[in-house]
Amino acid sequence: MTAPAPSEKALVPFVSVENMMRLVHHIGIERVLNELTDVIEEDFKRWELFDKTPRVASHSREGVIELMPTSDGEIYSFKYVNGHPKNMAEGLQTVTAFGLLADVSTGYPVLVTEMTLLTALRTAATSAMAARHLAPKGATTMAMIGNGAQAEFQALAMKAVLGITHLRLFDIDPRATEKTRRNLEGSGLHVTACETSQAAIEGAQIITTCTADKQYATILTDNMVGAGVHINAIGGDCPGKTELHRDILSRADTFVEYPPQTRIEGEIQQMDLDYPVTELWQVVTGQTHGRTSEKQITLFDSVGFAIEDFSALRYVRDRVRGTSFFQPVDLIADPDDPRDLFGMLQRAKD
Amino acid sequence: MTAPAPSEKALVPFVSVENMMRLVHHIGIERVLNELTDVIEEDFKRWELFDKTPRVASHSREGVIELMPTSDGEIYSFKYVNGHPKNMAEGLQTVTAFGLLADVSTGYPVLVTEMTLLTALRTAATSAMAARHLAPKGATTMAMIGNGAQAEFQALAMKAVLGITHLRLFDIDPRATEKTRRNLEGSGLHVTACETSQAAIEGAQIITTCTADKQYATILTDNMVGAGVHINAIGGDCPGKTELHRDILSRADTFVEYPPQTRIEGEIQQMDLDYPVTELWQVVTGQTHGRTSEKQITLFDSVGFAIEDFSALRYVRDRVRGTSFFQPVDLIADPDDPRDLFGMLQRAKD
Repeated sequence: MTAPAPSEKALVPFVSVENMMRLVHHIGIERVLNELTDVIEEDFKRWELFDKTPRVASHSREGVIELMPTSDGEIYSFKYVNGHPKNMAEGLQTVTAFGLLADVSTGYPVLVTEMTLLTALRTAATSAMAARHLAPKGATTMAMIGNGAQAEFQALAMKAVLGITHLRLFDIDPRATEKTRRNLEGSGLHVTACETSQAAIEGAQIITTCTADKQYATILTDNMVGAGVHINAIGGDCPGKTELHRDILSRADTFVEYPPQTRIEGEIQQMDLDYPVTELWQVVTGQTHGRTSEKQITLFDSVGFAIEDFSALRYVRDRVRGTSFFQPVDLIADPDDPRDLFGMLQRAKD
Repeated sequence: MTAPAPSEKALVPFVSVENMMRLVHHIGIERVLNELTDVIEEDFKRWELFDKTPRVASHSREGVIELMPTSDGEIYSFKYVNGHPKNMAEGLQTVTAFGLLADVSTGYPVLVTEMTLLTALRTAATSAMAARHLAPKGATTMAMIGNGAQAEFQALAMKAVLGITHLRLFDIDPRATEKTRRNLEGSGLHVTACETSQAAIEGAQIITTCTADKQYATILTDNMVGAGVHINAIGGDCPGKTELHRDILSRADTFVEYPPQTRIEGEIQQMDLDYPVTELWQVVTGQTHGRTSEKQITLFDSVGFAIEDFSALRYVRDRVRGTSFFQPVDLIADPDDPRDLFGMLQRAKD
């Protein structure tokens, strides 16, 4: 079999998990988180340019598989992502993902990449971007409730972008807390393992909740949340999955990515449809205010939106250019004469 | 850098264009088309089991990028596919595609493959499956109007599945016709190049239209279509793109894949919403009739549906098993402890 080598147009750069890890270490993880935060903020500033649709979800008893497409008119992106809370018990990731960038003018893919790691990075960077506009100035301490796969990424993003110095951990499973504490040794963060969530939030200006159960849970109750804190709620991100008591939502000013999606998937699914929310992109562009007082409780009701993946994908595309952190894959059939797909197939036989 | 080798769960079989071509030649193209026709028919028989949504399209001035997901509750699939008619003039494919199968119970991908070739194969196999139920018995001659990238695949599928012996070609570009004629030398088909579409349809029991212009075109007018023929209309497959005069639709009995999609994208976008259509799966299951008389004009208004891609993907998954026609790619991050994604990243540094 002597198939001719595929042409350049047929080859798409593919970033494997191994290459993504190499890329992150090459740049340095805190720098990656800082740069990603800025790239995401750039795209939030151009929010109105993007095609926006709620993700396309295929639900099953065990979990959900989603496609998250968007486009700014020049570049198209989508992410494939699953959410299967029961996976962890089987030694599998709850969330895995990969994604693609394509050229809108030709439809040809220009990047395919793993996005399990990249999603963890962009979720943390999005939280940091929101906190940059919403957290009290000079915040030094974050409580992290839920010490799963996201925990260290959230902590390092808040350190890199906001200058957080102290981290207070709680998880119902002490092994998760111990894992997070161990992983953050040498990071420069002062880490305290706590035995209750009540203890974890003591003195914290930022409270991040990131637990995985697919149920209406109450990780935080109203009496636990003092005036002036910023809540970064990551875990409530699909229908039937919330973390905060609704009384907190009644007291807080809530900021969201894309209301049509957040009202279905976020903490605010507990509230009436007229519950007031502010769109984060309007804060970023200066059209409206973020935090306006020291007493205010701000809540970023994060569910993850396609534009954040778009930002992360274009960041990776720019950052792998000229490096060895990708491999070209033969994904696109590209006959010399585009009408002669069959001839290409036939010649591969000779 | 000494990242540990990725675990087996992290590796997804990837079928490149080159490997797809090898697979097809290894099996034999007519056998592939026959087997695909049967696999698609199996899935049409279980039609009601599937999640069905119209494709998720991102339209631009130059073309469209679409995601086509579906699931039978055990396996999930999607296809990424573009349609850019102006690509041909730039030496690019009008349609390129790739796709994925995943396990619904874990959300983990189990196959990633090129689908530019595979889409051409499944589109031809779907046409053959429809013709098996709709074309007049004993059909020997097909007219093929539009001799682009699909032409040879359509011809060979009708030969392999229905026993067509004669092919009559017409294209507004004689070079396209010549390319198709040349590619089919040695196929066993008697091929006639014609100078008009009128000449091409002489004596044909099956008329396949497959042209690429994104406009309301009239490839066939009413006076050209005699009683008893089967029309296999492939090219009218997106809003604003049709091939048949509406008077033909008024005389024909029309069969479609998925009405909500076909009414937007197919030939029947020209007709009122109450224009009667029959769903092909109901013919396949015997719930209703296909062709009922010798005089009847049957029309398969093909637009391509996600379930056909699902069938093609599971066929490729089964057929590459145990072969060398794929490569494992490191697409999924799979840490030993699923909560320890960060630890996996950190250890890759050491």
